[in-house]
Amino acid sequence: MTPKVFYISDGTAITAEVFGHAVLSQFPIEFEALTIPFVETIQKAQKVKQQINDCFITTGERPLVFHSIINPEIRNVIFSSECVDYDFLNTFVAPLEQHLGVQAKPLLHRTHGKSNHGYETRIDAINYTMENDDGQTMKHMDKADIILLGVSRCGKTPSSLYLSMQFGIKAANYPFTEEDMDNLKLPEALKRNKSKLFGLTIDPHRLHEIRQSRMENSRYSSLRQCRLEVKEVEMLYKKERIPFVNTTNHSVEEIATKILDITGLERHMF
Amino acid sequence: MTPKVFYISDGTAITAEVFGHAVLSQFPIEFEALTIPFVETIQKAQKVKQQINDCFITTGERPLVFHSIINPEIRNVIFSSECVDYDFLNTFVAPLEQHLGVQAKPLLHRTHGKSNHGYETRIDAINYTMENDDGQTMKHMDKADIILLGVSRCGKTPSSLYLSMQFGIKAANYPFTEEDMDNLKLPEALKRNKSKLFGLTIDPHRLHEIRQSRMENSRYSSLRQCRLEVKEVEMLYKKERIPFVNTTNHSVEEIATKILDITGLERHMF
Repeated sequence: MTPKVFYISDGTAITAEVFGHAVLSQFPIEFEALTIPFVETIQKAQKVKQQINDCFITTGERPLVFHSIINPEIRNVIFSSECVDYDFLNTFVAPLEQHLGVQAKPLLHRTHGKSNHGYETRIDAINYTMENDDGQTMKHMDKADIILLGVSRCGKTPSSLYLSMQFGIKAANYPFTEEDMDNLKLPEALKRNKSKLFGLTIDPHRLHEIRQSRMENSRYSSLRQCRLEVKEVEMLYKKERIPFVNTTNHSVEEIATKILDITGLERHMF
Repeated sequence: MTPKVFYISDGTAITAEVFGHAVLSQFPIEFEALTIPFVETIQKAQKVKQQINDCFITTGERPLVFHSIINPEIRNVIFSSECVDYDFLNTFVAPLEQHLGVQAKPLLHRTHGKSNHGYETRIDAINYTMENDDGQTMKHMDKADIILLGVSRCGKTPSSLYLSMQFGIKAANYPFTEEDMDNLKLPEALKRNKSKLFGLTIDPHRLHEIRQSRMENSRYSSLRQCRLEVKEVEMLYKKERIPFVNTTNHSVEEIATKILDITGLERHMF
């Protein structure tokens, strides 16, 4: 039977999910997961305990619980349920206390709350990216931290958004279109910001697939056109010595963190 | 002295960052963190080892290392450095193996790579949100998973983007403007999708602050106007029985996960 997993937290439960998912993905089996955030009261914890116990009765197996609950009374309610408990935070707090010679002072909403400094930076970055997506204006390119380049549908927009959302980076992006291909060159606003340019490229077959699902059997989506655009754009990157990555087999997370790794831009955390 | 921390991974290092940050934020002191992703070769690991050892020599204290490296040879290079090592994944793998009766089979890029199912869902959701941001069109409202409502600058766009990026949810959003206030009501396309509506509200003073930084001393940013808009919109939510949250003291993560918690929309993981 597919093992059942609960991710439980008194906050967003994002940490519990990320950690539990990372541990469980080491196993070659499927899990059925349920996330329960904002368990901030004894009453809510008792309801969760009931859910866990019901799960045990139904399946005959104790579900796995990954939790990050700060309040000890609430935590004890969860502990007292019929679960296999992985208290992943506290496992490391005691050895760290000893090493640092500092006592932990756990606070609620410490990791994904709003108190973290730099929160305005993040919202400003998201707004910047929205306003400077897809080359809709060149006016603010001088304010960018990074400017992603690439053909239509190679991953510019999701990558830019991830950079701004997760890392507070003002990421603009600029598309090269069909019309640019005869004489591909950098517009003035980009030349001026040469050190901020970063290219994306993609396998032409994959690009063809993606474009087909948007505009079937068009010139835009033809393999011939995809090949041409990718070839021209990669030549430009090389000629202008613009660093670039191939997005074909990579997730948004991988593309964004590779860009930061290559450019040396700082990773903020929120 | 501020303790030094390294987050090291053979992948994006996002898991190492999230976990390490969650553990360290239990302590009432500052840390100086450096993230090193994509440590995929022995050579790169040896460079990292050198960095760690240099840090030890400079500061006289072994830096903390949170890592998620799968390859044992690469991991051993990091282990052999002058660090205090927190191998947070493997700490839980052995007890889980025993409990599940299944042997772990660690794979590279397992958590933030592209192999995770539902990846297209996510990109589709991001595209949907970009195309249906700020009420720019009402044509696709029927396809939304959720439609966020609210006055200008109350947090609709970042929340929608987070929902699509992190949870693969097609989140549209629709703004109520100054002109709507005399006779505030739901447009037809929203009435038709009543069950998908979710309201955001905000403290008028905070709204005033945010708007001031964009359009100083305008009618739009005046406290009087902010008060009026928030009051009208909250009355509409109550009259139409639209669930809503106040964004004033919450991060994007908290707003997004609260919305999912209240609506019961499923959290996908990518």
